[in-house]
Amino acid sequence: MLSFVNYIKLCASRRSHLLTKTTFQRYGYSTIKLTSDNYPNLKRNDNFKKITSDDLAYFQSILTPQELIIAKDKDELNLYNTDWTHKYKGQSNIVLKPKSVDKVSLIMNYCSKERIAVVPQGGNTDLVGGSVPVFDELILSLSNLNKIRSFDELTGILKCDAGAILEDVDNYLKDKGYLFPLDLGAKGSCQIGGCVATNAGGQRLLRYGSLHGNVLGLEVVLPDGTILNSMHSLRKDNTGYDLKQLFIGSEGTIGIITGVSILTPTNPKSTNVSFLAVKDFKDIETVFKRAKRDLSEILSAFEFMDMKSMQLTKKHLAETDGSMTFPLENEHPFYILIETSGSNKEHDDAKMEKFLEDVMGDETVIDGTMAQDVTEIEKIWKWREMIPESCQSEGAVYKYDVSLPLSKIYSLVESTNAKLLKEDLLYDPVKNPSGPVIGAVGYGHIGDGNLHLNVAAKEYNKIIEKCLEPFIYEAVSELQGSISAEHGVGLQKKNHLHYSKSPVEIKVMKDIKNHFDPNGVLNPYKYV
Amino acid sequence: MLSFVNYIKLCASRRSHLLTKTTFQRYGYSTIKLTSDNYPNLKRNDNFKKITSDDLAYFQSILTPQELIIAKDKDELNLYNTDWTHKYKGQSNIVLKPKSVDKVSLIMNYCSKERIAVVPQGGNTDLVGGSVPVFDELILSLSNLNKIRSFDELTGILKCDAGAILEDVDNYLKDKGYLFPLDLGAKGSCQIGGCVATNAGGQRLLRYGSLHGNVLGLEVVLPDGTILNSMHSLRKDNTGYDLKQLFIGSEGTIGIITGVSILTPTNPKSTNVSFLAVKDFKDIETVFKRAKRDLSEILSAFEFMDMKSMQLTKKHLAETDGSMTFPLENEHPFYILIETSGSNKEHDDAKMEKFLEDVMGDETVIDGTMAQDVTEIEKIWKWREMIPESCQSEGAVYKYDVSLPLSKIYSLVESTNAKLLKEDLLYDPVKNPSGPVIGAVGYGHIGDGNLHLNVAAKEYNKIIEKCLEPFIYEAVSELQGSISAEHGVGLQKKNHLHYSKSPVEIKVMKDIKNHFDPNGVLNPYKYV
Repeated sequence: MLSFVNYIKLCASRRSHLLTKTTFQRYGYSTIKLTSDNYPNLKRNDNFKKITSDDLAYFQSILTPQELIIAKDKDELNLYNTDWTHKYKGQSNIVLKPKSVDKVSLIMNYCSKERIAVVPQGGNTDLVGGSVPVFDELILSLSNLNKIRSFDELTGILKCDAGAILEDVDNYLKDKGYLFPLDLGAKGSCQIGGCVATNAGGQRLLRYGSLHGNVLGLEVVLPDGTILNSMHSLRKDNTGYDLKQLFIGSEGTIGIITGVSILTPTNPKSTNVSFLAVKDFKDIETVFKRAKRDLSEILSAFEFMDMKSMQLTKKHLAETDGSMTFPLENEHPFYILIETSGSNKEHDDAKMEKFLEDVMGDETVIDGTMAQDVTEIEKIWKWREMIPESCQSEGAVYKYDVSLPLSKIYSLVESTNAKLLKEDLLYDPVKNPSGPVIGAVGYGHIGDGNLHLNVAAKEYNKIIEKCLEPFIYEAVSELQGSISAEHGVGLQKKNHLHYSKSPVEIKVMKDIKNHFDPNGVLNPYKYV
Repeated sequence: MLSFVNYIKLCASRRSHLLTKTTFQRYGYSTIKLTSDNYPNLKRNDNFKKITSDDLAYFQSILTPQELIIAKDKDELNLYNTDWTHKYKGQSNIVLKPKSVDKVSLIMNYCSKERIAVVPQGGNTDLVGGSVPVFDELILSLSNLNKIRSFDELTGILKCDAGAILEDVDNYLKDKGYLFPLDLGAKGSCQIGGCVATNAGGQRLLRYGSLHGNVLGLEVVLPDGTILNSMHSLRKDNTGYDLKQLFIGSEGTIGIITGVSILTPTNPKSTNVSFLAVKDFKDIETVFKRAKRDLSEILSAFEFMDMKSMQLTKKHLAETDGSMTFPLENEHPFYILIETSGSNKEHDDAKMEKFLEDVMGDETVIDGTMAQDVTEIEKIWKWREMIPESCQSEGAVYKYDVSLPLSKIYSLVESTNAKLLKEDLLYDPVKNPSGPVIGAVGYGHIGDGNLHLNVAAKEYNKIIEKCLEPFIYEAVSELQGSISAEHGVGLQKKNHLHYSKSPVEIKVMKDIKNHFDPNGVLNPYKYV
C-alpha cells in the first residue's frame, strides 16, 4: 500500500516546476517591458489620484514600517510590479502589507474616498496579468495575513487568512488526515485568498468539485472598507442570497478576500495510476465512460495527451533527464492517464484491474501500463506534467486554456493545425524547413472538459499570433466553450469576454462591478 | 447485490409520504386562514397596481387559454394561492402558465412597467410561505415549461426547463445510469427550477454536495423581462462573475429561473444501510469521524435520531402499521443510520463490516443491525422518515430546521427541553398531567450539521409559541448557526434573518435586491 508519507512525497514531487520568487529574481527585471508600453492604447484613468506625501503619511500613520514598501526599495517593488510569466509589468511606487483585516478596511476606506486605485495581490502566480498594476495603482498585498484561524477535526472545516500559502495549509491538513480540495502547480507560492478570488481549478476538481461547492464562507473587505463577514462553519445555510459566491472568481474587482472558511475532504489512503494508449479521440470518450462506471467513486484524475505532445516531451526529457524512459514501447495517437484515490488499497486495485481487463479486453485500449510503486506513479505523472515545459523548449509557446463540450475537445487542435498548415507556418524538414511552428498539441483534464491547447513554435512573431487569434477564440465561441477554463480574465482576456459571454451577461457583470465599486478603484483596467 | 430495479423501488418507497395536489384538494380550502388575516400588521404595498381588464386583455393577447387561469376557475385558483402546509393563503385572481421562455420574458417586461407584483411558483411544495401570494400578486407558474432539453450520456450534463418535476427527471436519468444529485420527500411535485431557486438540500447532499457546486448554468428572466442565459455545458468557466450563483437560493426575488444545466453523477450499484445505537451524543461524533475514515468515498448518509423521537415513532407506527418492529431489542439514548452507496457490492460490504467491527469492538456502538436486503433497507429508512409524521401525531408540532456546528447540535434540544420543563409546559403523567408539550426531539443529517428540532405537542397555543420563540432563534444565533438550513426564508423567516446574518450582510442583500428589482415587483413582502 502507498504509505501516507510517500503520498506526501509524491505530492511534493509534482510541484517541482514551481517558479519561486528566488527564480524570479535570478532572471532580472530590466528586460521586461512595461504593460503600458505593450498596450499603448491603454490609457491611465485620470480620475485616479496620484499618491501624494499626505497619502503616504496617512498609510504610515496606520501601518508599521514592516507593512509598507515604498520607492526606495526598488528591487522589492519590482517583485510586486511584475507578474510570474514576465509578460506584465506595472509602475506602482507603493506596496501595503497590512497585518490585520481592520487595516485592510482602513486602507480601502481611505483609497475609496481619495480615489486611489488599488490592486489586491496574493501570491502573484496569476497567468493573465490580473495581480499586478497596469500603471501606478497601489498594491495591497495579503502576504501578512497568513494564519490558520481554526480547524475542526470532526467536520474538516478549515478557517484561514487569505494570505496563507496553499502548500502550508495542505501540509497542515495532511497532518490531521485531511487535504485541501484544490491542488496546483503554484501551490508553494499561491495563497488561499488568491485561489478563491480566481476560482482556481487544478487537479482535484474532478474528485472534489469546484470552490463554489467547497467554500463555506468568506470575509471580504468591500471597496468602501466595509467588512462583509460570512465566515460560517455551516454546510447548509439558506438565509438569504449566497453573497460569498459573487467573490469567488471575481479577481479582486469588487472586494478583497481576507478570510476563507472551507470544507476539506479526508486524505485518501491509496493511489493508483495507469497510463493507456488508444487509437483515436473517440476511444478516449469510451474509456472515460467506462472509468466513470467502474472506477466511479475512486476516480480522481482522467487526463489525456496527444501523440505530438508526448513526442515533444520525449525529446525534451531526452535532453534534460536521461532517467525517463517512456512508459510504453510504441507510439500511439492518444494517451490517457487515470488516477484513483480511495480508502482501501485492495479494493482500489481490484476495481482498477477489472476496469483495465474490460477496456483492454475489447481493444478499446491498445496498450497500457500500471504504476507498481510510488516512483512509477511519479514518473507517469511527470510525462503529463512536463508537457508545458517541453512545448516551450523549442523557443516559444502560445498557450490557450479552454473549456469545450467533451465530444468537441480535440477538433480544436485539429482545426488549429489545419489552419497553420494552410497558412504555411508548419515546419516540415523537407517541404517547409523554415516553418516557424512545430505544431499545435492538445492535452488536459478530460474529466473537466478542459483542453490545454499549446502551439509550440521556434519564436514569438506577429504572423503566428495573427494566424491563431482570433481564430481560436472564434472556434471556442462557435463550439459554445469558454475561452478561460481556469486561468481567469485579468488584463489579457478583458476584451475577449464576448467570445464566451453574451452581451446580456457582460452587461449584468458590468452592472455588478459598478454596484459594488462605483468609483472603480479596485483592480482597474481588467476583467469586465 | 442490490439490483438496479430494486434500487428504484427503494427510492420510490421513500417518497410515500408525499402530499400530492390530489391530497391537497381532499382537505378543502375553506378552513385555511388568509395570510393577510394571520399577519394583520402586513399591509399591501399600494405602489403595486391592481390588475385591470386592460392588463388581462394584454395577457390574453400573448397567451393561449390553456396558459391562463382567472377568477372564474375558483378551485384552481385556490390550488395556486394556498401553500403545502396550509399555513399561508393568498388572494390572487390570476395565474399565468406560459409555455415558452419568451412569454415569461414578455410577462415580466409588462409587469415591471405596469408595477404589477408577481410571485413565481414551481411545484408549490415550499415550507415557509415563499411560493404563494400574500395579497393579490399575479402568480406566474412554471408548470408548462417542463421539458428535458438535452442530456449528454458521456459527461452526465443535463439541461432542462425549470418546471420539470424532480421525480420525472430522476427517473429519466436512472434509465441512463445517472441520478439527480438531489433527493427530496417532495420529489413527486417539486420542480427543478424551484429546487434551484430555494437551494434545496435533501438526502444526497453529504455525498454529492450542494447545488452551488453542481449547477453549471441557468436561464433566468430578470424582473424587467431580460433573459439572462448561461445554460452552458462547461464544468470550468472562469470568464467573469459567476452570476448564476446569485439566483441559487434567491427564492424568486431577483429573477425567475426558466432553465437549468446541471452535472449529474452516475447511479450507485450497491447500497448498504446499518442502524446503530450509542450511549451519548459525544459517541455520535466519534462514530461519524470513523465513518468518514473507513467508509470514506462510499458514505452517502449519516443520520441521527434521539430516543424520544424513536419512542414517538414506535407509538405512532404501532397504531398505524403493525408490520414495523423496531430494528433493535432495547432502547438507547441515541441512534445512527448509516448508508453507503458505491460501485462494487463486495467492496462496500467489506468496508462496512470492517467499520462495524471497529466501532462495536471498543463499544462506542453498543448495539446495531445491518439491513440484509432491500426490504430491510426500506424498513430502516422508514424509522427515520416517519419521525416528522409521528411528532405531529399527538396533535401539533413546532418544527425548526437549523444548522449548527456539529459539536453543539444536541445542546439545542437539551436546552429547549429544559426551558419547557422550567415553564411547566412538559407533560408528565404524574407531576404535570395537563402539560401541553410531549417534548422536544432531535434528529437530522449529522453529515451536514443539520438538526431538525421538533417540539411535539397536544395543540398549538400561544404560550408554547412564546416559550419557543425567540428562545430557539436566539440560541441558534448564539451558537453561530443558521435558523434555516434548507427550508429557506420565504415569508416565515423574513423578520428573523438577523439571527443568522449580520447587519452588513442584510444590507448587502437588500442592495442586491434593489439592484436587480428596483420596483420590488418580484415576490414582494418576503425574503429580505
